Amino acid sequence: MVSFRIATAEDLPIIVQMLADDEIGRTRERDETPLPESYLRAFASIEADPNNELIVACLGEKIVGVQQITFTPYITYQGGWRATIEGVRTAASDRGEGIGTKLIQWAIKRAKERGCHIIQLTTDKKREDALRFYERLGFKVTHEGLKMNL
Amino acid sequence: MVSFRIATAEDLPIIVQMLADDEIGRTRERDETPLPESYLRAFASIEADPNNELIVACLGEKIVGVQQITFTPYITYQGGWRATIEGVRTAASDRGEGIGTKLIQWAIKRAKERGCHIIQLTTDKKREDALRFYERLGFKVTHEGLKMNL
Repeated sequence: MVSFRIATAEDLPIIVQMLADDEIGRTRERDETPLPESYLRAFASIEADPNNELIVACLGEKIVGVQQITFTPYITYQGGWRATIEGVRTAASDRGEGIGTKLIQWAIKRAKERGCHIIQLTTDKKREDALRFYERLGFKVTHEGLKMNL
Repeated sequence: MVSFRIATAEDLPIIVQMLADDEIGRTRERDETPLPESYLRAFASIEADPNNELIVACLGEKIVGVQQITFTPYITYQGGWRATIEGVRTAASDRGEGIGTKLIQWAIKRAKERGCHIIQLTTDKKREDALRFYERLGFKVTHEGLKMNL
């Protein structure tokens, strides 16, 4: 039985471990002990912001998944709020258990609670499995996702 | 000479007019007098949020462009901040004057000031001109943008 809750600072090492244990993620994270300060600072900013929620999925006490949901007010769509999902990962040991699906379904429910009219995300074009996964859950691939490193 | 500033509530009618004066936007905005309350509520939320900036481009006193920039702290990328651009429009009367380019260049500069390591946006796959415009400015089309209406 998967449960969901807001992440705490104590969860950060396992969250970073999940983010790093990924073909694309491993090149850009630093899963070290102690954790680089930048992770702690980002966590503090997320925790202090009512429009950002870092969510962990748990099986009992064990953390098996993570995602961040950002709620943003826009002028477009008659002043509509949107939810954006980012950094979705499940623990390698628990992949194939439907935890990813439950994470996204939880995000959709939460976005509705927050009055959002759209839920959105971008996924690397190289992640073909992720793309199919999100399409199965009802997302439409209507947009191009553009990025620039600064 | 184009200048940029944070939008005020008094700018909202012209901002909504610009958003509505667009092939895709006209089906989803309500450019009415008085403006629907939902626009005013969204503006108040943006104004109160230090991580959201609604920016207008001006020629003298005249508003000729708009964009919203959202700054988001993430755990991914070692706790990196990102800037997201949304709702970019220029006044129909001033298109072709390079105002769009200056808006995005301003957003890039602002994102750097805020310490962001990535600036990103999504654009509807139907907006082929917009896609080329952003690519010319240095954005890479590395991601798919997925949306779900709630």
